[in-house]
Amino acid sequence: MDNDVIRVGLLGCGNVGAALVQILSAEGDAIAERTGLHLEVTRVAVRNTAKARGVDLPAERFTHDGDSVVNDPDIDVIVEVIGGIEPARSFILDALKAGKPVISGNKELLANVGAELFEAAHAAGRDLLFEAAVAGGIPLIRPLRESLAGEPITRVMGIVNGTTNYILTKMTDEGASYHDALAEAQSLGFAERDPTADIDGFDAAAKAAIIASIAFGVRVVAGDVYREGISGITESDISFARKLGYVIKLLAIVEKIGGAVAVRVHPTMVPMSHPLASVRDSFNAVFIEGDAVGELMFYGRGAGGPPSASAVLGDLLDAAHNLRAGGAGRSPTLGRARIMPIDEVTSQFFLTMDVSDRPGVMHDVSGVTMRHAVSIRSMDQEPLGDNARLGFVFHSALERDMQATLQDLRELPVVERLGSLMRVIGPE
Amino acid sequence: MDNDVIRVGLLGCGNVGAALVQILSAEGDAIAERTGLHLEVTRVAVRNTAKARGVDLPAERFTHDGDSVVNDPDIDVIVEVIGGIEPARSFILDALKAGKPVISGNKELLANVGAELFEAAHAAGRDLLFEAAVAGGIPLIRPLRESLAGEPITRVMGIVNGTTNYILTKMTDEGASYHDALAEAQSLGFAERDPTADIDGFDAAAKAAIIASIAFGVRVVAGDVYREGISGITESDISFARKLGYVIKLLAIVEKIGGAVAVRVHPTMVPMSHPLASVRDSFNAVFIEGDAVGELMFYGRGAGGPPSASAVLGDLLDAAHNLRAGGAGRSPTLGRARIMPIDEVTSQFFLTMDVSDRPGVMHDVSGVTMRHAVSIRSMDQEPLGDNARLGFVFHSALERDMQATLQDLRELPVVERLGSLMRVIGPE
Repeated sequence: MDNDVIRVGLLGCGNVGAALVQILSAEGDAIAERTGLHLEVTRVAVRNTAKARGVDLPAERFTHDGDSVVNDPDIDVIVEVIGGIEPARSFILDALKAGKPVISGNKELLANVGAELFEAAHAAGRDLLFEAAVAGGIPLIRPLRESLAGEPITRVMGIVNGTTNYILTKMTDEGASYHDALAEAQSLGFAERDPTADIDGFDAAAKAAIIASIAFGVRVVAGDVYREGISGITESDISFARKLGYVIKLLAIVEKIGGAVAVRVHPTMVPMSHPLASVRDSFNAVFIEGDAVGELMFYGRGAGGPPSASAVLGDLLDAAHNLRAGGAGRSPTLGRARIMPIDEVTSQFFLTMDVSDRPGVMHDVSGVTMRHAVSIRSMDQEPLGDNARLGFVFHSALERDMQATLQDLRELPVVERLGSLMRVIGPE
Repeated sequence: MDNDVIRVGLLGCGNVGAALVQILSAEGDAIAERTGLHLEVTRVAVRNTAKARGVDLPAERFTHDGDSVVNDPDIDVIVEVIGGIEPARSFILDALKAGKPVISGNKELLANVGAELFEAAHAAGRDLLFEAAVAGGIPLIRPLRESLAGEPITRVMGIVNGTTNYILTKMTDEGASYHDALAEAQSLGFAERDPTADIDGFDAAAKAAIIASIAFGVRVVAGDVYREGISGITESDISFARKLGYVIKLLAIVEKIGGAVAVRVHPTMVPMSHPLASVRDSFNAVFIEGDAVGELMFYGRGAGGPPSASAVLGDLLDAAHNLRAGGAGRSPTLGRARIMPIDEVTSQFFLTMDVSDRPGVMHDVSGVTMRHAVSIRSMDQEPLGDNARLGFVFHSALERDMQATLQDLRELPVVERLGSLMRVIGPE
């Protein structure tokens, strides 16, 4: 094939940007041979041009003027890996207006102003691709948009945050406490010094919004996502879950329920036999359920420079091919759907409660649950000094009814303390 | 969006064809709303037009003249789900020549004359898509061709045959014998009355050839694939594997080794902690290793009408979009690479041998292995009447050296019987 040079303008040169430049240095010739496209990073916009990036590019390719890269008529494609809303949003809109396809790895941006960006891409007739934004190196967005374009998808459940999965794996496999596991994740560089975005589920919620938008073709923004983090999970929760045949995972769950869409992130009890249960350490996985295709799972590295750069590279080649063919792929057109509040969502539940160890406890508890149409599926217990800790799994119930049950249980004289309420997936 | 009618000619109406028609009946309007494309199956070629197909199509759309469908100027796209080489090959070549994109679910065809078909698609400037041919409903070919177009893939390992995975799962989980597990698979319809294609690895070998072709961009045909089936696997092999921390899976393994490509299908010992180990029953999964992306796994239903029809549908929508945009996607151009014979491939190995239970056995055995530069990593044993059954895991060695070791071990007076030689994956 002829070698066709595609000039890439890179906005941001952190982990992902630098890894992309490195892959292109090492593999550029092989890629050109296979695809006929020679990708060349000709300009790089960074905040600090003096900082060493570990990339083999001449100093004069770096600038701190992002606008000059976006508007450079010699640049064919823009890769945005800055993160955050502004100036990333303006750069992308300007690039599309200038006829340049854009590859972005920016989940905050897509989870907040995705619809605006897709419309701009549509109007410009240019690609806006973002495989790296949701699950790092795992091909997820392209399969959802293309392979499953006709599939009636009913639910997607993902382990989309590596930090929290690492912490939960340490707690499960080694009996580590939450604080020790977090400290270890921080010392290994898997968790930030301020880990809020990960452990409180903000990162996963942004990804859930993007997944819901693409899987169902409707507008969902990060603020629509019901969100609980993992900081309340105790060693007792973990060991009780195991005793009942479950592991605890932080899941992003997006569902189509009638004409509405429910999107949530919370710790979830996953049956040990479920494929998501064996996703360990900092790996990510996304489990898709569709009427025709049945169950699918995509597994891999959800973060890190080289895996995310691999996703950017796939998008780059796609955009470059489309550009040379004089068109764009299909930008999603997002419709509107009602976002179902968590109160109306139905789940199975798990709850621990510390109770006085005396007769009549089960009678009192079951009286409360009955009143709210919540029914007990299984119960187990462990001794706790003079008290006992009971662990209940409840059959599917409305969140609203379960929360009302919780209120009333708290009032029961026999109940000393309620543990965290957790949703459960798997067969009833 | 405007509804643009795409007229589909269907060749074959078995499980997959019928499921496709059913999905389009149920979901056609929703698909049209999302994609702007209304897919209509306007002609169906079948051998027996009298047979009931369980599809809601007027009788006059059926014909037994495949040529008339392929050459019908009113038909936009051809779906070929007949199977076998001819007449499928001629139909596809004619359809491409007539300017019609083709979707095929035919692994035999692609694994034998794929290069010819890709060239025809290239020459015609039309799509030839075949997602359903390798792993049923699992999006694999599109991610390999597009998302990973720039990724330096080093190895792909797949559980790509549901029948054998079902049998091995029964043997592993329930201690069933090979014959009982096969009989159960047959009674449930997972295995054919003549199960040769599955259990002897022919089905997996065809899929391995296609995966190697796409992952590495080189010509590999079914006949290039080294192949062993599962009929020699005993309950003792399974239980020994478990004792050593492994499960036995039939894997298709394609590797790039220097400039050569090694492609093989054989029973393999997989460490229990490996993601492929937890792929059970008739599920399929494909595990991909790349320099940048690290480890990826795609999991799902590898066969069955609705999952395969879901894959065909994704391809159909892609081809229809490309057709309306006046072009085609990128057909792979297959180069040539040396196919490395199994003799030159390096693996870890597992071998059981029944020996007289007396001193000096280990000395004799290790003398033989040493002579062939094969080194023992671990050994375990179980009593066997007056004898003992020893199970060895060997460090990585050339297949040729291991086979020579086997010859010499057979000559040892202390060795009563050698069990099956099995390759092992995982860390050394």
